Amino acid sequence: MTTPFACTIHATDGAARAGEISTPRGTIRTPAFMPVGTAATVKAMYPGQVRDLGADIVLGNTYHLMLRPGAERVAELGGLHKFMNWPHPILTDSGGFQVMSLAKLRKLDENGVTFQSHIDGSRHVLTPERSMEIQGLLGSDIQMQFDECVKLPCSDAEAERAMRLSLRWAERSRKAFGGEPGRAAFGIVQGGASPDLRVESAKALSDMDFHGYAVGGLAVGEPQEVMLAMLDIVAPLLPAGKPRYLMGVGSPDDLLKSVARGIDMFDCVMPTRAGRHGLAYTRHGRVNLRNAVHAGDPRPLDPDSACPAARDYSRAYLHHLVKSGEILGMMLLTWVNLAYYQELMAGARAAIAARRFGDYRAQTTAGWAGRG
Amino acid sequence: MTTPFACTIHATDGAARAGEISTPRGTIRTPAFMPVGTAATVKAMYPGQVRDLGADIVLGNTYHLMLRPGAERVAELGGLHKFMNWPHPILTDSGGFQVMSLAKLRKLDENGVTFQSHIDGSRHVLTPERSMEIQGLLGSDIQMQFDECVKLPCSDAEAERAMRLSLRWAERSRKAFGGEPGRAAFGIVQGGASPDLRVESAKALSDMDFHGYAVGGLAVGEPQEVMLAMLDIVAPLLPAGKPRYLMGVGSPDDLLKSVARGIDMFDCVMPTRAGRHGLAYTRHGRVNLRNAVHAGDPRPLDPDSACPAARDYSRAYLHHLVKSGEILGMMLLTWVNLAYYQELMAGARAAIAARRFGDYRAQTTAGWAGRG
Repeated sequence: MTTPFACTIHATDGAARAGEISTPRGTIRTPAFMPVGTAATVKAMYPGQVRDLGADIVLGNTYHLMLRPGAERVAELGGLHKFMNWPHPILTDSGGFQVMSLAKLRKLDENGVTFQSHIDGSRHVLTPERSMEIQGLLGSDIQMQFDECVKLPCSDAEAERAMRLSLRWAERSRKAFGGEPGRAAFGIVQGGASPDLRVESAKALSDMDFHGYAVGGLAVGEPQEVMLAMLDIVAPLLPAGKPRYLMGVGSPDDLLKSVARGIDMFDCVMPTRAGRHGLAYTRHGRVNLRNAVHAGDPRPLDPDSACPAARDYSRAYLHHLVKSGEILGMMLLTWVNLAYYQELMAGARAAIAARRFGDYRAQTTAGWAGRG
Repeated sequence: MTTPFACTIHATDGAARAGEISTPRGTIRTPAFMPVGTAATVKAMYPGQVRDLGADIVLGNTYHLMLRPGAERVAELGGLHKFMNWPHPILTDSGGFQVMSLAKLRKLDENGVTFQSHIDGSRHVLTPERSMEIQGLLGSDIQMQFDECVKLPCSDAEAERAMRLSLRWAERSRKAFGGEPGRAAFGIVQGGASPDLRVESAKALSDMDFHGYAVGGLAVGEPQEVMLAMLDIVAPLLPAGKPRYLMGVGSPDDLLKSVARGIDMFDCVMPTRAGRHGLAYTRHGRVNLRNAVHAGDPRPLDPDSACPAARDYSRAYLHHLVKSGEILGMMLLTWVNLAYYQELMAGARAAIAARRFGDYRAQTTAGWAGRG
């Protein structure tokens, strides 16, 4: 029998929750950070490494995969899990965010978005129905509704128009969702920086019987205070027994503050992208390995880390690799960063279970100010 | 007591030799292929992976390392082995080849070469004495004499001038060699495509009491027949009890044909560079993953390989990664290629020991013609 999709909250501490999401492909321990595997690869990492760090789920991007290699191609090859050699859960976004930020010559109407590929200029159409079809072809375990995500700041009128359109697209997405056993569809709360719009969106979506709910449009340029204010309003309105996913967020500090507000899932390119640009995230804070101060420093990033990349290579060597543009520099720093993000989430889960999440946040945050 | 540098030949089959070279940092099984770690990294590979493939030794480039991060810097940090997290033997070249192929505004005279860095235009001087000093600072286990390597084809007069200069530089290099316990210095036979010059060079160097001998100037544009003809002439003139190293060579076919002529050591950027450009070397021949024919091919490169990269990922996925410019594509194909080069050498060692190297060459070569 296929394991049904189910969310269990084992412990709470204030608004923070620790639990697990069951899927046919495995259990996702929450709060969870999902490494981003845009084009069917978590950049500069072997999939086995990602798993060994403790990641239970990765994210794939519908927009990138529909353009290359194509959803039908991935389906013919046995689905995205097999294609990218990742047999564990995968969440796919709907393509709505990237189509507005990456594609060329976009035309948006009630039906969906017509656009040109940023890769080869070819013409494509994404609608709620086609987005869900693509996510089904990929074999995604958690599929996101098609939505329109506006860039902040924007007028309330614009945020309202996009939120209402996203609600209509949510209904169409939910209806189009294939509903294969154990797979899930998530709705996405929109509404820009407007409390009223966020409330309206959260309430309307809650009535649509999605398997989980995301908060979208909060990694698009606004200050952290706006994001946290929106979470304070939205999270209590979402069904307590279903997963809550904050899309595209964020820094270690963003994560802890959002967990404190009841968020269960995150994805962000920050640890992987930063790793490719010479930035390391560790227990002691952020380290820019490009800086000349590291050129003669024999110390590793963190001698007590369980991650070999943080433990077994000097800052001087990492500096050298970064300055030389060596691939190994990107490999090691991506590894360091994903290891730290997973460690941060594992610590949060344990702290919530022990009802000492406040202490954990305070100690962790204090650690970032330590000498990096 | 420090293990002395020593070469033992355990078995021969025709001119082919199998044996081992003892060094304080470990034993090098021969014939050996040395992965190239130009800037203190075998590109796109973790050092532990390189070791796990069976590599006993890697090569570092004096030219690159003297410019960045600098030999004195590496020495302050505990030497090249510690710097790059590779505790096993390292051979360094002398810088002679790269200074002529990469540096700008070169001026060569009896003393050495004055040049500008290709990185930042800074001015540097390399002489036999400075090259050996740098290799000593790096802590190299096998240090190469400083030589002048001419590009083929060239006139016999030019080849003769460079060969004679290289002999004088060999004497100065041998004298300048630090001679730390267990470390070795190798001379380099030059002479272009001229049998007479090669004979003169080999004989003169044999009298200089180096710990091993390299054949240089044969990966610089000449046809394979010229290379093999030079090896036929040079190898029998070199001391039988010392290692023989063919510099900068080559393809799998080059390697087997050179082993058959008595060569013990090789280095080449081919497997690593090809891997970064979408080319795979396998038992079944060379595969260009860029080709569209692979886009829908669910087969791995070699289902029977011990290398996960060759066994666990479809050609369709590798094609996708290469076309998308993903770092993982370079990581996987570099891994495939270095694994195959090490497998090829391990097979050669076993075949020589069993006195069936001719059969091994024939079977291996026939395999390359199989459907890749």
